[in-house]
Amino acid sequence: MSKIRLGIVGYGNLGRGVQYAASQSDDMEVVAVFTRRDPAAVKTVLPVKVERYDAMEEYADKIDVMILCGGSATDLPEQSAEVVRLFNTVDSFDTHAKIPAYFDRLDAAGKESGHLGAMSIGWDPGLFSLARIYFDSAVRRGSTYTFWGKGVSQGHSDAIRRVAGVKDARQYTVPVESALERVRKGEEPQLSTREKHTRECYVVAEEGADLARIEREIKEMPNYFADYDTTVHFISEEEMKRDHAKLPHGGFVLRSGTSAAGNKFLTEFSLRLDSNPEFTSCVLVAYARAVYRMHAEGRCGAVTAFDVAPKYLSPLSEADQRKQLL
Amino acid sequence: MSKIRLGIVGYGNLGRGVQYAASQSDDMEVVAVFTRRDPAAVKTVLPVKVERYDAMEEYADKIDVMILCGGSATDLPEQSAEVVRLFNTVDSFDTHAKIPAYFDRLDAAGKESGHLGAMSIGWDPGLFSLARIYFDSAVRRGSTYTFWGKGVSQGHSDAIRRVAGVKDARQYTVPVESALERVRKGEEPQLSTREKHTRECYVVAEEGADLARIEREIKEMPNYFADYDTTVHFISEEEMKRDHAKLPHGGFVLRSGTSAAGNKFLTEFSLRLDSNPEFTSCVLVAYARAVYRMHAEGRCGAVTAFDVAPKYLSPLSEADQRKQLL
Repeated sequence: MSKIRLGIVGYGNLGRGVQYAASQSDDMEVVAVFTRRDPAAVKTVLPVKVERYDAMEEYADKIDVMILCGGSATDLPEQSAEVVRLFNTVDSFDTHAKIPAYFDRLDAAGKESGHLGAMSIGWDPGLFSLARIYFDSAVRRGSTYTFWGKGVSQGHSDAIRRVAGVKDARQYTVPVESALERVRKGEEPQLSTREKHTRECYVVAEEGADLARIEREIKEMPNYFADYDTTVHFISEEEMKRDHAKLPHGGFVLRSGTSAAGNKFLTEFSLRLDSNPEFTSCVLVAYARAVYRMHAEGRCGAVTAFDVAPKYLSPLSEADQRKQLL
Repeated sequence: MSKIRLGIVGYGNLGRGVQYAASQSDDMEVVAVFTRRDPAAVKTVLPVKVERYDAMEEYADKIDVMILCGGSATDLPEQSAEVVRLFNTVDSFDTHAKIPAYFDRLDAAGKESGHLGAMSIGWDPGLFSLARIYFDSAVRRGSTYTFWGKGVSQGHSDAIRRVAGVKDARQYTVPVESALERVRKGEEPQLSTREKHTRECYVVAEEGADLARIEREIKEMPNYFADYDTTVHFISEEEMKRDHAKLPHGGFVLRSGTSAAGNKFLTEFSLRLDSNPEFTSCVLVAYARAVYRMHAEGRCGAVTAFDVAPKYLSPLSEADQRKQLL
């Protein structure tokens, strides 16, 4: 069996995760990593060729799917519609408000070049979106809830690091257990932002910094913390390294509803991940398989997880899927 | 908007559930129920025309999708390949060992007539199968576990009713909490049949029956009970009616795995249903929407949940799906 040839664009936590994930699939190989840094300065977790971003064109016949591992703020909006001119792509674009415009641009570029781009792939958006659409489609009368955590929010950790006097920070988003329990009981509560999640911050302060001011500035930060019950713990650099080195995450999607005869239904999907980027990468690699197969069937343009039949994700033959997984 | 016109074939718990479920979807209407009983003897939960099974042909232009609500033992194997000659169909065929042959027959009949049949739809097979294929595709190194219950198994209840001296019976399948916890901890245990589920039986005995013999015969019944820790409770007819009238069910699909870098992942999907047939019916109706749309795009033959992209299930437009659910 010839393998699906992957390229990795951008080599941070996600790029490393894709290399790890591809190594667990016999039908995949990573041909090259593309970086806008100096390729010689990039150390990969497994052996692979590292190329300059601009060398991509030379790989037009050597790579089946490019997995875009950049960030949603600037990398992906620049890259996806550009890379899809030469390759099929998969990305994890997650800036929710900008998804419609991003979809249209990727769709147009893909249709023009005859390539297929899968966007907003991962776990949220991604597997959580799938839970939402399946649950919503089956249980028409009800309420859907998404809780995140317990896990590290990198955006919130970065926001704390921008406070004067902060050397390092790690922010955990924590779902409120009592709110989860109310949903599980079938109450269908209206929950405010504050009632759903709390925020736990671990902060390494610079020597002599005004801790009370730092704590106040964090707790009052609009959008990030002001609407939440936030706790701030000051810790040492050693404690940060020892206790907060990983990037765990997870969460819950629940739908609570009622049949026309008055019977209650509760559907729940949850994830508990020791490494958020490594799991996201696993999902990206599964969708690279789907993109490869759907493109081989003549599909081009943009797709999200909603457009991909599950059969395309599995390395098993369709007959074996029915035998082993149905 | 013109509605999707449904027919219901067979009118037991599932047929009633389909009527209820369709009443919760604005884009659906039930045109007629078809029965092999005397139509005049069928009382429907909501107003609808009841026709003889043989009158189906007259509806060839009046119904878009037939939902087959018969049993997997004899009804569906007879009906599905027959009904698909005239209509698109959805069914809940769940005899696992016979799925490959059933698929081939439905696929051939559908391709010949130009209709589409979705088979093995519901929650297991169905939503649980989806959890298994998504989890297995994303987490390549790991173990998948399916637990059922707590809920009424109708097959096991029927088996008890066949024991001499038993007037009525209800059997609950109960997942072993400690086994579930071991899976959630990431142990990836090898679990025997006995370690995963227990069986709780509620039995109304005939007056003067030998209770010790009934209990022994139940517990020693091969396939159904011999491999499980089984408890038998003798109750009165009144207690049966009062405490065991509903058909609740549910269960769990979990996958526990590890990334190539050694990080643990736990994915879990669970259902808690006050009414097993009413929830199954909700899923059947969502797949009727998908079958209608895929057939309109030219698709025919047989499909399972694995072949259906999630977008086809939702009543929302694709743009609204991306806005509201992605």
